[in-house]
Order: sequence, then C-alpha cells, then structure tokens
Amino acid sequence: MSSWGRVVMDVPDWIDDMASPGVSFEPKDRMPFVIELARRNVVEQTGGPFGAAIFESVTGNLVAPGVNRVVPTAISFAHAETTAIGLANQRLGVFDLGGDGLPAMELVASTEPCALCMGATVWSGVRKLVTGARDEDARSIGFDEGPKVADWQDALRSRGIAVEVDVMREEAAAVLDMYAVSGALIYNGRSDA
Amino acid sequence: MSSWGRVVMDVPDWIDDMASPGVSFEPKDRMPFVIELARRNVVEQTGGPFGAAIFESVTGNLVAPGVNRVVPTAISFAHAETTAIGLANQRLGVFDLGGDGLPAMELVASTEPCALCMGATVWSGVRKLVTGARDEDARSIGFDEGPKVADWQDALRSRGIAVEVDVMREEAAAVLDMYAVSGALIYNGRSDA
Repeated sequence: MSSWGRVVMDVPDWIDDMASPGVSFEPKDRMPFVIELARRNVVEQTGGPFGAAIFESVTGNLVAPGVNRVVPTAISFAHAETTAIGLANQRLGVFDLGGDGLPAMELVASTEPCALCMGATVWSGVRKLVTGARDEDARSIGFDEGPKVADWQDALRSRGIAVEVDVMREEAAAVLDMYAVSGALIYNGRSDA
Repeated sequence: MSSWGRVVMDVPDWIDDMASPGVSFEPKDRMPFVIELARRNVVEQTGGPFGAAIFESVTGNLVAPGVNRVVPTAISFAHAETTAIGLANQRLGVFDLGGDGLPAMELVASTEPCALCMGATVWSGVRKLVTGARDEDARSIGFDEGPKVADWQDALRSRGIAVEVDVMREEAAAVLDMYAVSGALIYNGRSDA
C-alpha cells in the first residue's frame, strides 16, 4: 500500500440480517427491499436515507446492496448507488457489469440519481435503472441532486439503459421524510452551502 | 465486515517515488505533477491515462494524489478525480473538504471531468477545479465523457467552485495520445458499447 492509504467503502453489518449472498428477489420485491435498506439505514444511524441494489434482471439474484455511507465513512461519493456498484464490481471482479458472458443487470435505487450517480450508472454497465422517489422529493427535504442533464432519462436510454421511474414513489419518499423529521444531518458536500 | 465485502480504492506504490505526504507544490508545478501522474500510470500499466490531485490552494500542500484505476481494481468509478477525492476525504476524516476550519482546496486534473467526476467535484467541497486536456481530446482517442451538462463550467462556478481550463492542454493531451498509441484498453463502462 502506498503512503497515501486507501479508500474503503463498506456497508453496515446489519445488511446481513436482511440479505446474504445467494438470495434472489422477484421483480415486485426488489424496490421494497431497497426502500427497506434506506429506512433501516436511517433507523440504525449508519448513513443517509438512500438505498440501492444491483440484481441480475432475469434470476433476481442480488449481486450487491448499497446504502448511503457519506457521513460514517467520510467519503463524499459513498452514495447508495456507487456503493452497490463498487461492491458488484469487486465481487465479480469486473469493471463492466454489462460485459460479454454476464447476465443483464439492473440497478434499483430508492431515489432518482444525483449528478454523480447518473454518471456512475452509465459507467457501471447495468442495462436498466429503476427508481422510487423523485429528485424533487429529495430536494424537498434539503438534499441537492447536483447539476444533472435535464433529459437524464433519455440520456440513459440512448446509451442502452432502460429507465423505469416512480416505482413505489410514496413509500420511498416516506423514508426521506422520516429522515428529515429525525433531524439528522442533511449534508450537501459543503456544510456551509 | 458484512458478508458483502468492501470496495477498496488505492493508488499504485510508485506514487511514493514522486510524492509522499508532507510535500508541497508551487502553483506552476501542480499541473506538471498531475500530468506526470497520468503519464507514469500509462508507462507502469497501472490504469488509464488520467491523473488528478487535491492541493491546499494557498500552501500547495498535496492532500492526495489520484490516478485512473478502473481496470486494475475493477471499480468502474475509480477515476483519477474520485480516487484523489476519496483519499483526501479519508486522510482528513471529513466528507466535506470545504468545511469550516479547513484551508481552501483545489482539484487539479489532467483532463476535463466526465459526468461522474463533475458530480464528485461538486460533492467534494473543493473550491477550485483546474484542468488540462479538454473533453474533445479524451473523445478523440475513444474515451466517452458521458452525459454532462453543456454548461458544466458555469454549473460549477454557480456553486462557488472556480474553474480554470486549458492549463498545459497540449502536454496533457500528449499523454492521452501516448496511451492510444500504446494500444491499451479504451474502456467505456460497456466493453461492447
């Protein structure tokens, strides 16, 4: 290891209570799982109110879960999506989840992607993105989604990534509201922004 | 550690030959250092042709270096900028490099940011972004910068981040050309894209 150290992104141990490697989810059960990740992350005070997961689209095999870990890890880009993508990359040993010989994978996220996670979705190689709460739901409690192209759904579709939004939006937004009521830190990169 | 493992981003050991914690750089020496990171990353075959670093703007103290590590680590978002930002976050133990009590910091990158790194720059808390090669220089050798807002410089400035582009553009673009000539893998998230 160089003298500059390493960046270590992780997920909380309580995720093992919810799902271990080898578990599969029917399509209808994927968003509820991701919303529960977000909810439990708030309850356990292990990060922000966001959950995400990568599944094999056909089998439903859970490739990797993720939750927001910005505050506990002090990594500014440790969002739920990047955490799930990074874990999937390293578990499979491939930087391209859409590469030859791999089953099609989808990213399911409790909220529409911020500017960072939009880019991360493109580079991940997933073939589909499914989201719950909208950008405006995140903004309504003080989170900033960042400078993202206005036509982000079309931008993803034009790159071969299917997009499905508003899946269980109310249930997903309820976790955001719960977090806001809890008085936890709404961070936005700059604490004085 | 949960059964899902961890995401470990690092920099190559050869960076210790170039700079160790405690070293400082005059403003004019910052971009040459970052371009040399990119060049050496190609020569050592430890990743893509991109370098970045975070400096304290006034003192020039090198807070963290970064190089592209996508292929060696299999992490799709292990770009030079995210690596430098993550190392800076974890070395200082803060997710917000622009937080109270910290000196102003700048991100110097050998190429203009892709969509992902634009978002990461915003969330990092740096107060300034300095770039060398342009988006079109990266595109000209086959790298994709992703769906990024057209007015990305203004988007950063409107968030309090100063932007300076085209610093040693030719020298930075020469590293991209060297990489292309080397025949190394030009990845774009999807190997079949």
